[in-house]
Amino acid sequence: MSSARPRPVYFDCDTGVDDSVALALLLASPEIALVGIGTVSGNVDSTQAARNTLDLLALAARDDVPVAVGAHDHLSHAHDGGVPHIHGHNGVGDVVLPTSPIEPDPRTAVQLLLDLSHAHSGELVVVTVGPLTNLALALRADPTLPERVASVVTMGGAALVPGNITAVAEANIYNDAEAAAEVAEASWPLTLVPLDVTLEHRLDEDDRAALLASGLPLARAIGDILDLYFDFYVGLYGTRSCALHDPLAAAIAIGLVTPTVAPAVPLVVDAGHGPGRGQTIADLRAPRTGYIDHPGVTTRIVLDTDRALAPVLIERLTTPRA
Amino acid sequence: MSSARPRPVYFDCDTGVDDSVALALLLASPEIALVGIGTVSGNVDSTQAARNTLDLLALAARDDVPVAVGAHDHLSHAHDGGVPHIHGHNGVGDVVLPTSPIEPDPRTAVQLLLDLSHAHSGELVVVTVGPLTNLALALRADPTLPERVASVVTMGGAALVPGNITAVAEANIYNDAEAAAEVAEASWPLTLVPLDVTLEHRLDEDDRAALLASGLPLARAIGDILDLYFDFYVGLYGTRSCALHDPLAAAIAIGLVTPTVAPAVPLVVDAGHGPGRGQTIADLRAPRTGYIDHPGVTTRIVLDTDRALAPVLIERLTTPRA
Repeated sequence: MSSARPRPVYFDCDTGVDDSVALALLLASPEIALVGIGTVSGNVDSTQAARNTLDLLALAARDDVPVAVGAHDHLSHAHDGGVPHIHGHNGVGDVVLPTSPIEPDPRTAVQLLLDLSHAHSGELVVVTVGPLTNLALALRADPTLPERVASVVTMGGAALVPGNITAVAEANIYNDAEAAAEVAEASWPLTLVPLDVTLEHRLDEDDRAALLASGLPLARAIGDILDLYFDFYVGLYGTRSCALHDPLAAAIAIGLVTPTVAPAVPLVVDAGHGPGRGQTIADLRAPRTGYIDHPGVTTRIVLDTDRALAPVLIERLTTPRA
Repeated sequence: MSSARPRPVYFDCDTGVDDSVALALLLASPEIALVGIGTVSGNVDSTQAARNTLDLLALAARDDVPVAVGAHDHLSHAHDGGVPHIHGHNGVGDVVLPTSPIEPDPRTAVQLLLDLSHAHSGELVVVTVGPLTNLALALRADPTLPERVASVVTMGGAALVPGNITAVAEANIYNDAEAAAEVAEASWPLTLVPLDVTLEHRLDEDDRAALLASGLPLARAIGDILDLYFDFYVGLYGTRSCALHDPLAAAIAIGLVTPTVAPAVPLVVDAGHGPGRGQTIADLRAPRTGYIDHPGVTTRIVLDTDRALAPVLIERLTTPRA
C-alpha cells in the first residue's frame, strides 16, 4: 500500500462495456479515490449509463460513490441512440445486472463535477471515457474550472490512425465535436488517449476466463459483459477479443501504465460539418529523430506506453482489495 | 529495350527541385514517352516553371516535348508566391541554367492535356506533381476527359502521417484544395502517392556526388539544383538529403517502383475552411490483417513500395540513353 494520499478522481462515462472495465479498474486501484461519477449519452443514454454504473458499484459494495446523471443530448444535436450491436441494448452487453437500490445523485453531472473541483481544488483528476458534453457544459457554467483541476485524461480521438466512426473520427469526439473542441481549448493539462494507443491494448478469451473464474462478483460480471463485445472485435482483430479503450485512460490516470511517447503538441478538434468532422487534429509534424514538445502546450497525445495493460488489469480486477 | 510500345505520359508540374528530378527520370525511362508537359503555380509560378522545364529539356536535347504554361492562380485563390527557402527563388535551387531558345507551346496546359487525351485516347497516363488546378480546369472544360485517360498518378496528400504545410495537409493538395477535391471525385483510376510513402524514399550526398560526376549535362544540373534543397531537409532527416516526393510518382507511373500496399479506398479532399483544409481523407479503416479494396473504388492510396527508388533513379539519370 502506497503511503501517498490517493488522488481524487472524477469519472465521466457512458457505461458501456469498456467503461465498465475502466470503472472496475478505478475501484480496484488504491492509488486513486473515486470521488464521483457523471454520466453522458454515448454508448447508451446518460440515464441508462447511470443505472449501469450504480449496479456495477453495488457489485463492488461501493455505494459511497455519487453517480450523477449528465447530459442526455449533445451541444448541437440529440443523442443518436447508441450502439446496441457493440455494447448491447442496455450498454452492458445485454447482461442483466442485479439492480442496486441506490438512486443517482440529485445533482447534474455538471454540478457534481463543479462541487468536486471545489472540494478537491488543485488535486482533482478528471477521467473521461465518453463524449465531452458534461465537461464542456461545466466549462461554460464556470470558466474557472480548469484552475481547480489537476489534469484531464480523455479517451478519444485518432491522431495517426483511422477513426472508428468515420475515416478520421473516433466516436467519443465525433459524438460531440463541439464539446470536444471546447475541452481541447480550455487551459488544463489534457492527456488525450487516442485509438493510436488504445487499439494496441487488448483483452482475449484467456483474460475473460480469468475474470469469470474470479471470486469477486464485479470481476465475474465484467467477464459476462465482455462476451457480446468480443464478437464485435472479430471484424477488427480476427479473434474474439477487445480493445482496452476506456481502461487505458483509467490506467494512465492511475499510473498503472505510463506513456512513453506523448508529445505536447497543439490539438484542434474539427467541429465543422465537412468530411473531417470530429477529427482530433494534433500537430505531430516532427523531425525523424522524434517528437519535440511545443513550448507552453499542456495537451499531450499518447502514442505509446511502457507496458501491456491486460495482465495488470486482470490482476487488479481479480485480487480482493485490502 | 522493351518491345512494348512506350506509354504516353502527360506531366503536370510546378518545377521545382524534385519536379526536376522527376522530369529527368521520365526523360531517362524508355518505358514511357513524354508527350507533353503542363505547368502550374506551386513551388514557383507557372511561367517560371515552364522556363525551368524548357531549360532542363534542352540539357537533355529533348526540344521535341511541348511545354504549355498552365494556371497561374488556383481555383479559389491567387498563387501564394511559392517557397523560395526550399526550392530557391527561381525554383531550381537558384542555379542558373542555360536558357533554352525554345518558347512554351502556345496552348494552355488545359488545352494541351485535352489534345493529348484525344491523340492518345485510352492510353494517356497523367502524372501530376503540383497543385491539381490544371486537371480540375480540364475536367470542367471537358467532363469526358476521364474516359480517355488510362490513369492518373498524383504526388500529394498525407494519409496516416502528418502533413507538411499544416498538421494534416500536404502542400500540393492544400495549395488548391478545391481542384484536388474535383480531381478525386472524377471517375478515372487515380493513384495517390502521399507523404506516407514519399518520405520513405531519399537521396543523400553520395547520390548527389554521383550526379555531379556524371558525363550527362542534365544529371550534373540536377546535382547542382539539389544543393539548396538538401539544406531544407536537415531539419527533418538530420542530414543533408532529400525526400523523393515527385520522383516517386514518376517512378510508379513508369513502373520502376511497384506499390505493394495500395488499397483502393474512398478518398475525399477536405476543401472546407476549417483546420482540416487540404487534407486527403482516405478511408483506411481495416481489419488488423490488412487493407481490403472497396468494391468499385478506383482510387488507390500508396502506402508502401517494393524497393528503394534512389539507386534506380541514380542509375537512370547517369546512364546515357541508347
